[in-house]
Amino acid sequence: MATLSDFGAFMERFILHPPQQLPLKGLTFAVKDIFDVEGYVTGFGNPDWARTHGAAVSTAPAVLAVLNAGATCVGKTVMDEMAYSINGENKHYGTPTNPCAPDRVPGGSSSGSAVAVSAELVDFSLGTDTGGSVRVPAAFCGIYGFRPSHGIVSTTGVTPMAQSFDTVGWFARDPIILNRIGHLLLQLPDMDPVHPNRIIIPDDCFQLLSIPSDRVTQVLFKSLEKLFGGEVVKHINLGDYVNDRVPSLKHFMDKSNEQKEYNIPSLVALSSSMRLLQRYEFKNNHGDWVLSIKPDLGPGISERIWEAIRTTDEKINICHTVRNELHAALTSLLEDFGILAIPTVPGPPPKLQTEATKLETFRVGAFSLLSIAGVSGFCQVTIPLGMYDNLPVAVSLLAKHGSDGFLLNLVESLYVPLKEQIKIAESMNY
Amino acid sequence: MATLSDFGAFMERFILHPPQQLPLKGLTFAVKDIFDVEGYVTGFGNPDWARTHGAAVSTAPAVLAVLNAGATCVGKTVMDEMAYSINGENKHYGTPTNPCAPDRVPGGSSSGSAVAVSAELVDFSLGTDTGGSVRVPAAFCGIYGFRPSHGIVSTTGVTPMAQSFDTVGWFARDPIILNRIGHLLLQLPDMDPVHPNRIIIPDDCFQLLSIPSDRVTQVLFKSLEKLFGGEVVKHINLGDYVNDRVPSLKHFMDKSNEQKEYNIPSLVALSSSMRLLQRYEFKNNHGDWVLSIKPDLGPGISERIWEAIRTTDEKINICHTVRNELHAALTSLLEDFGILAIPTVPGPPPKLQTEATKLETFRVGAFSLLSIAGVSGFCQVTIPLGMYDNLPVAVSLLAKHGSDGFLLNLVESLYVPLKEQIKIAESMNY
Repeated sequence: MATLSDFGAFMERFILHPPQQLPLKGLTFAVKDIFDVEGYVTGFGNPDWARTHGAAVSTAPAVLAVLNAGATCVGKTVMDEMAYSINGENKHYGTPTNPCAPDRVPGGSSSGSAVAVSAELVDFSLGTDTGGSVRVPAAFCGIYGFRPSHGIVSTTGVTPMAQSFDTVGWFARDPIILNRIGHLLLQLPDMDPVHPNRIIIPDDCFQLLSIPSDRVTQVLFKSLEKLFGGEVVKHINLGDYVNDRVPSLKHFMDKSNEQKEYNIPSLVALSSSMRLLQRYEFKNNHGDWVLSIKPDLGPGISERIWEAIRTTDEKINICHTVRNELHAALTSLLEDFGILAIPTVPGPPPKLQTEATKLETFRVGAFSLLSIAGVSGFCQVTIPLGMYDNLPVAVSLLAKHGSDGFLLNLVESLYVPLKEQIKIAESMNY
Repeated sequence: MATLSDFGAFMERFILHPPQQLPLKGLTFAVKDIFDVEGYVTGFGNPDWARTHGAAVSTAPAVLAVLNAGATCVGKTVMDEMAYSINGENKHYGTPTNPCAPDRVPGGSSSGSAVAVSAELVDFSLGTDTGGSVRVPAAFCGIYGFRPSHGIVSTTGVTPMAQSFDTVGWFARDPIILNRIGHLLLQLPDMDPVHPNRIIIPDDCFQLLSIPSDRVTQVLFKSLEKLFGGEVVKHINLGDYVNDRVPSLKHFMDKSNEQKEYNIPSLVALSSSMRLLQRYEFKNNHGDWVLSIKPDLGPGISERIWEAIRTTDEKINICHTVRNELHAALTSLLEDFGILAIPTVPGPPPKLQTEATKLETFRVGAFSLLSIAGVSGFCQVTIPLGMYDNLPVAVSLLAKHGSDGFLLNLVESLYVPLKEQIKIAESMNY
């Protein structure tokens, strides 16, 4: 209660000291070479970029935040050129070796950040994810990767790729550390884990898998059942749901995508709308630089970047409508405490130096899945599920925009039951 | 460059250690009794609220952020009931004493937080500002107060007033500390101060002052001139500018506001639109509680809260249009590096227990000025300018949404020339 001696300013006096120990004390980390670090050139994966840019004059707030929380940075990691790939192959700086599968790509564009964590060179690392650049390398390297809800972690001091989709993400081997980084970067309060009230399994998405889908779904179901009971699981057809609720996708339905291979037309259309807006924003960010410098770019990346440079603003408004419609549709599907489970990617990491044409089916499926969080702005985690046929397996969980803390807590709760189920599945090579 | 021993993950290895010293180490602070602090009931300024709510189970992220940065919290401060006043008088817990003018109100609703800083009981404090609750008590108590751009500092764990306008703000006696808190809470990178390319002085707004407007404008002009040269200053009529650029305000133009006293019709309309949306959101937040508990509320506050409870959704859509139009209009007025200077309030703090009817002209002027940042979401700082006639004088600067770092750096640069000009003005009682 107020007293005269303190000018009546206080309701109550008490002392809260700063914490004795910083939350990330003793942890080491690395950052993708897309984050500004004062005194170092931000290389953006390409030597011509590095050559034509000066040293950063300040450090990106996301990097400062983990430093201030007591972690030690040990260096900058290799990335795909201009963040324009999910493969992880860099012809200039070499392709980081996938510790889980050395003859396979590590995934990108945050390739080195994923490899550094997977190889136990650091405790965690920072990457960025526009179209899948954290989620994919996490899946390929057998570690956890988190893409937060769009617009929550500051991207100041991070070289932009396409602002409508750019996010700062992070990798860890351990979901407890993954969660701790999340609480810090997302400025989340401590809270008890909340039981999800629905876990939605879109069977059509799991049919995209090139490995037996049971290897993924059974491990996940049994772990979820153990924690929350079986009645929380609900099966749907996500392609139909999106098709019904996102009418503006009709502008992106492309007959030529109806190939013989299995795919989900509405999600292929979703990924087309995403890639168009991504190309358009990339061009606005970097078109002048590309046209004036004509950088030396690797195969695949070069074609994509020059295609982006030719993008016009045709249909850009519809892309924004798609975003709003998808955001609303998925918000009413999941509400506050729902979870959507999907494969992160349609299968194991491709072999190194696979020709682009042979990856087409994989890429169509991957971007169908990756654009769900990409376009809606929802948060998504990649969860490693052990090995199948000596190659890493992963699954993803999504929660609605802003439910990052709920999702991170859930992943931490799942850790022990998942470990048990993975052990059983691996022992049966199932 | 990548080497095999590190899996080719690194571009460059270096060591960045966590900072030796935490940025707020050694500083003490207090928090308004609207922030959750684990284990304490958040009282929201009213005993019936405290009685009907349990202890908070976690601490608000904004409070955790300053604790984690090394500051020590010494208690919770008195506030106006349900944050529904700018006066600072609380009939239940007593009115905190204004250290600059003990027979005057301290301003509210963050009354105790402002008084604790002004009385040198703490180094800084946290408050909230929906309609003026940081800016006004800072002006009345002769200290700095900062209202950040809307939506940037997390309001999780802060009892809501009206979400379209709610912000977490802070008070300090010293602009260097004000800036340091800002860099932390806004997660800003360090950056050099940038010279403003225009300082806009709306002469019509300064005519609202009940003290000689020269006392404010001369101190400010001379300091700005010293720093940036005179040609940066530009005079406009803000009322006309807003009237032309925010056509939806016509729905809030009220003949009855055209009193004999001088006022600016478009800004009065702006404040009407703001107050309508504020009442509507307040009702959605707290209507059920007010109707079921029928809390004991002080004079003025009781009338405003019951008026809010009767609000319907009529014209609410137009309020959102006003926000968008004003945001666009002021963004093109200021662009990235422009500053708008206005009086924070029309005059010195009113005497304690002044009847509400006698404050009407003051309130109309105050809300005309306060709703400029309130509706646009722009950031605004209150700068103390010493004493005139033994009462505190203040001025405000605004910058566009997201330019908080630019504004805070500018305030720090202004400190020394302002001190000199204030000394001259005070010595002449001018």
